[in-house]
This record gives sequence, C-alpha cells and structure tokens, in this order.
Amino acid sequence: MKILIKDIRLTKDCGFGKNPVNILTDGKIISYIGEFVPDVRADRVIDGKGNLVLPAFYNAHCHSSMTLFRGYGDDLPLDRWLNERIFPAEDRLDEKSVYIGSMVAIAEMIRNGIVSFSDMYMFMDSVACAVRDCKVKANLARSIVSFDPDIDMKNDFRMKEAADFAKRWHGECDGKIKVDMSLHAEYTNVAKCCEYVADHAAKNGYLMQVHASETKKEHDECIERHGVTPIRFFSDTGVFDVPATAAHCVWADDEDIEILARKSVTVAHNPVSNLKLASGVMPYVKMKKAGVNIALGTDGAASNNRLDILREMQFAALIHKGTQLDAAATDASDMIYMATRAGALSQGRSDCGKIEIGYAADLLMIDLHSINNIPNYDYESAVCYSVGTSDIVLTMCDGCILYENGAYTSIDTERLEFEMKQVLENYFV
Amino acid sequence: MKILIKDIRLTKDCGFGKNPVNILTDGKIISYIGEFVPDVRADRVIDGKGNLVLPAFYNAHCHSSMTLFRGYGDDLPLDRWLNERIFPAEDRLDEKSVYIGSMVAIAEMIRNGIVSFSDMYMFMDSVACAVRDCKVKANLARSIVSFDPDIDMKNDFRMKEAADFAKRWHGECDGKIKVDMSLHAEYTNVAKCCEYVADHAAKNGYLMQVHASETKKEHDECIERHGVTPIRFFSDTGVFDVPATAAHCVWADDEDIEILARKSVTVAHNPVSNLKLASGVMPYVKMKKAGVNIALGTDGAASNNRLDILREMQFAALIHKGTQLDAAATDASDMIYMATRAGALSQGRSDCGKIEIGYAADLLMIDLHSINNIPNYDYESAVCYSVGTSDIVLTMCDGCILYENGAYTSIDTERLEFEMKQVLENYFV
Repeated sequence: MKILIKDIRLTKDCGFGKNPVNILTDGKIISYIGEFVPDVRADRVIDGKGNLVLPAFYNAHCHSSMTLFRGYGDDLPLDRWLNERIFPAEDRLDEKSVYIGSMVAIAEMIRNGIVSFSDMYMFMDSVACAVRDCKVKANLARSIVSFDPDIDMKNDFRMKEAADFAKRWHGECDGKIKVDMSLHAEYTNVAKCCEYVADHAAKNGYLMQVHASETKKEHDECIERHGVTPIRFFSDTGVFDVPATAAHCVWADDEDIEILARKSVTVAHNPVSNLKLASGVMPYVKMKKAGVNIALGTDGAASNNRLDILREMQFAALIHKGTQLDAAATDASDMIYMATRAGALSQGRSDCGKIEIGYAADLLMIDLHSINNIPNYDYESAVCYSVGTSDIVLTMCDGCILYENGAYTSIDTERLEFEMKQVLENYFV
Repeated sequence: MKILIKDIRLTKDCGFGKNPVNILTDGKIISYIGEFVPDVRADRVIDGKGNLVLPAFYNAHCHSSMTLFRGYGDDLPLDRWLNERIFPAEDRLDEKSVYIGSMVAIAEMIRNGIVSFSDMYMFMDSVACAVRDCKVKANLARSIVSFDPDIDMKNDFRMKEAADFAKRWHGECDGKIKVDMSLHAEYTNVAKCCEYVADHAAKNGYLMQVHASETKKEHDECIERHGVTPIRFFSDTGVFDVPATAAHCVWADDEDIEILARKSVTVAHNPVSNLKLASGVMPYVKMKKAGVNIALGTDGAASNNRLDILREMQFAALIHKGTQLDAAATDASDMIYMATRAGALSQGRSDCGKIEIGYAADLLMIDLHSINNIPNYDYESAVCYSVGTSDIVLTMCDGCILYENGAYTSIDTERLEFEMKQVLENYFV
C-alpha cells in the first residue's frame, strides 16, 4: 500500500526548514520525502494541512498489563502500595486479564503516538497476542527472578519459560515482535542466574532488559549485600556485555554512569513513574555529559498512570531544568531524540525512529492549528512544551494507519471497555 | 436559562459516592444536585454518559497576553531569555497585539476547563475586552513598577492608570471582571510605592497581586538590599494586610511561610513555569503543613508553554513526591482543591469553586470513557494522574456553556489563528 501525506512540516534535523513537504510510504517504509508531490498513484492521499510529522514514539520501558491497576492505590507510600495493593492484585492475574490489560495499554499508546514498547512481565504470551492483534511493535520479555544461590538454571522453570517464549515469538508478525531476555532486578536475582541469562542472550542474539537502581533502598542494600552497586553487579555478571536496557538508574553514581556509557547500555528514563513512586530524580545531566544512551519509558500505568511518551518528554525536559536550576539543562531536540530514535535503537530496530527514505514508516502527525500551539516559533519547542495528546491526529506503524482523528483501525475500544469491566468484576473487585 | 446535566459522577467530597447524579443550573447558579431527575422544564438536557463533573478550574496566576511569546526562546538561560527575547518583544506590544494574545490565551484556557484567571500585566484594557468578549471571569491588574525612592505616588502615571483601570472595569460584566491592585515584585518597587498601593487597595476593597521569591537571585538580592526577604518586605510595607496572592514563593524560608500563613496570603503555585525557567521547586510540603492557602497558576505561556491547570495539578502532585522522596507528600484531593476552590477564594469569589446548590455554575466535564481513564478505581486519582486535556468535553461559566465537544460558543478560533498570524507579521517577525 502506498500512502501520500501532503503539505506537512518536519523538524529541523530533517533539513527542510519550515517549508511544506510531502511524504510517501510504500509498504512498510518511507519511499519519498520532498518539496515536490511525487508522480505516483497512491492508494490514499492525506491532506496534512501544514501539520507536523514526527517519527512515532518508542516506549523503552513498560509493563503493559499493569494497566489493570491504573489508579489502584495512589498516594500511598511505596511499601504499602506494593504490599497492600499491587502484590495481592498481581497474584490474581491470569492469561485473560493480562491480555485485556495489554490491549487497553496498547490502545492508549497508539492514541498517544507510540508504536513500539519494551515490556517485561508475566503471562507474556497474552501480551504477545495483544501486540499481534493491535498491529504494533514490541520487545517482550518473560521477567526472571531467582533467590537460590545454588539454582540449577538449566532446569529452572522460569528460564525454560523465557527460552520457550522466545522460540515461539521472536521475529513473529513480520519482525514487529522481538523477544528479549530479562532479569527483574538485582535484589530479585542471584549472580549465577544473571550470568546464565546473559550468556543465553548472547548466544541467541537476544537483547536484555533489567531494572536497576530505581530506589535508594535498592541501591544501598545492594552495596551492603554485594559491596557493589546494582549497575556494577549487572556489569560484573556479564549482563551489560549483551546490548541491554536498564530501567530507571535513578541512583546511579559517577562510576555507574561511566559503566553505562562504556558498555553502551541504554538507560530507560521514566521520569513520571520515578516521581510518582517517590524514587527520586535521575542524574540526567551527568549521564548526558558522559555520553550515555538515554531513551524514555512510561513504566506501567500502575505507577504513572498514563502511557504517554509525550508527557514523559515534557516531564524530563522540565524536571531537570528545575532541579538543576539551569534552564539550559535540557534541550527540546534531545528530548525528541530520546522519545524516538533512542528508543528504536534500544530495541535493536536500527531502521526505525527516523524520518528518512528507507526507514520504517512509523509516523505520527501533530495538529499545529490547535489553540495551544498558536503561535509557533519553533517545532521542537512546541512538541516539548505545548503539544498535548489531543493534538496527535494520526499514528502509523510500518506504513499502516493505526489511529486517525479519533478512530482506531485495529482496536474496538468500546468492546475493550466492556471487557475490562468484566475482568475487573471477576478478578479484582 | 436552565440546563440539566443527567447521569454524571461527582468526586467524594460531594457526598454521592460513585452513584449517578444529575445537576440543574438556573441562570448563573447550581440549583439542584441529586440522584433523582428534577421535575422541571430545562432549556437544554445534556446526557452526561456517566462522565465526571468537577468545578471548573481557576488559574491563580497568569499573564494572558504573553501567549504571543509562546515558544519564543525556549531552553535559554533565564537572563538571555529575558534580555534577548522577552524584553525586546514586550517593548513592541500594543493594544491590538495584547487583545489577540489574550484572546488566544482565553480560548486555550476554556479548552482546558479554566473559567477564571488572575492577570497582572500591561495594556489591561485590551485584556479586559478579551475577557468580556470570551465571557469568562478574571481578576485583572495593571502591574506597577517604581524605582525612585522619592516617588510622588499621587501623581505617578502608573498609579493613575491602575486606579483608573479599576474605576472602569471593577465589577463589570455582571461581576465576572474584578480589578486588583498589583506590585510587580520587590526588586522592581520601592517601599514607598508598596505602602501607597496597599493603602489604596485597602481603602477601595481591591485585592493585591504580587510576584515574590521566584528565583534565588531575587530572594538573596532582596536580603542584601533590605536585610529582609521579599515576603517579609511585602509584609512590612502592609501589602499582606490586604487579601493578597503572591505568585511563586519558591525560595520562601520558614519565617516567610509563617508570615504567609498568618496573613492568609494565597500562594499561587506555578510548578511548570518554575521548572521551565529553572527557578526551583517551591516548598509545598512545608507550606501545606503550616496551613498556607495554596492555589495553582500557569504563569504566562512564554514560560510554560501551556495554560493548563490540569497539567499544573499533575506536575504539583508528582514533583513534590519525587523531590521529597515521599509518595504520600501530595494527595489528589488536595490538588483538585488547589485547582478549584482555592483559586476561587484567591480571587475573592467565595460563591465559586464548589459543586453545591447556590454556588456559581462554573463546571467542567471529563470523559471517563477515554482509553487513558480505563479502568477507574478512584475519580480524584484519575483527575490527578490519568486525565488529559483531550478528556475535557464541556466547560461552563456562570451557567453558560463556553466549550462543548470541540466547539466554542464565544470564540471563532479559526479567525483568531488568522489574526494572530497578522499580529506576528506586523510586530514580531
């Protein structure tokens, strides 16, 4: 299918200034970008009305099915939230509820211009089915925990599940689904398990997903336990010798930052979740200066409560200026890069996250005529500080339109609302 | 006019739990709230579809016409932003551009559920005309600056303008417009002027608007200059003996907080602007504990870049949890109170900001069926953490619908976009 989007604007890095541009997609990829309207018979022509087209957003850290727990126990201290609310609720999860939770999550992400997400959780076959049914992309991982220092990894059921899940789904849906290996965190794993999982990932060409240094407690207790920080622990166990994404890294110290940069680990920065759970503020400026790859994540809806990379971008842009007392601490272009290209690279999708001929046609369109975008001196600045979800009028993944002006093409949201209600009646209320 | 809104939900403090409720407005006020549909002939019946109705938002601090400078010089350090961008641009302002800037600002506020704002700036007749034409409420003030210690206040042109503006507009538009007195800030005023303006406000029953302790530089330089903090300076010059709103108070110390509480000053908390200009994070938790009245403000769009109280609420809720490392540091109900009732009280509008019979029919409706609001365990939590601008489907001011499902009743936004373009061509580009 060929789709021609006429009369749009692109950000500075695309090299067209503020001039009207046209984009043609051909199958999965962008086949033309230019000031002239190409002489081809397109299956569909969209009037861009002078709106802004960006690469679609990539969500580098999520637990999609936790959307089931959106708003379930807010404003509680972290330990009460986990022990009184989340852990008991997670204990009642099953395949059906995880599928519905993920469907709602993906519907929200599509609405917010996100076409791909990284996810580590349980019942991952259900998540994979939701990804397939919604026609988005995802890097999915069955998250592993291990507490026995003498664990027999070859016969461990979690390891087996993770490996089998990868065999079933890696590369499925025309490459939209990838499977990663995942260690939940340092405090939920023994070194032997980390070494085994990292080795398995390396041998099979899988990427790694972990949580690291999310809270001060986790960071300090790891030092007590192992004499090293969680990031150093993962580095020492070989986890960072595989291309890896480490979520949070809020308490990363200078040595940690040096390791993250040297090992080319992608840090998934989740500013809203880190604030909401009172984990703290990640040392973004130091990391950026050290050359660390940073992408943006939403974390799960239980701790956010939205799956909205635009909002993460705005929080990241603002919170580091405000806490560093430096208005130049963040830059709108860097924020957009983190939300797009950096996320795509963290998922091993080097042909995504950029508006360039030959790249995947993962696009979103922003209505620049919305009252909150008037006037408009600078597109990057608008995206970072004034655009809102309500301005996203089109989301496209691999050349396929998933959302346009309020309507989904792959999801029946009314039915989904009904099914979510049923799930809650059966399991949680 | 009587408007009946059927099948809605209200927040906990209204006392109806999660039950379906109906609201009737009669002229400017709410005349019925209850589980039964009242037996009256309404001029209009709206199906609320189980959506949430809140008091409309009150914006306690704004410079509406600065919308002209939205995105004009972002990511620059504060001094370069002011000296290279804002001050030269402000120098070119006139009545027409301020009117258009304010119109765009008010259109955005209505879209975001805001029906009233406090504004201190220049060319205030133009702002008043925009408020009148858009049918919203505002507390408007001609902001005064003074640098001569021997100033003759009786004959000062700024004082005269402020007093005349008040005579022309105070109480106009059926009370929708109120005029306040305003001192720009401590660093732009001499004590003699502050005393005179405060006295003038007290004698005439006007409220006061000031900026105070926005930046560390301002705070520290005031101590060097006067031996006291900006808040103490205003207290000493009698400014806080008048009902006053002090914007920012980011660097308020313990003694300042005690003064703010004792003198019943409303602090206009502008979290987004304070972060964006790298001013810092206001000591919210200490202020709240001390019993200070806190309302929410957007500041001008030049330093935000949106006029969106919902976003301010979400930033306030999250940033204090994250920087205090305490997930219980803020509470969704408190945030909603700051955005509604506290703002109304800061404007001397004691019959506004509450859903109660006899109160002003200033309402907004939130679509709870949006994908980002599914599931929904708690309405307050949803408003504070998952609702977005796109979910606001109705804004009503004094019983008059100003916005409904994408359409304005008092503003032609297409024309406004064209007029804004003309203004920019003539004055700024």
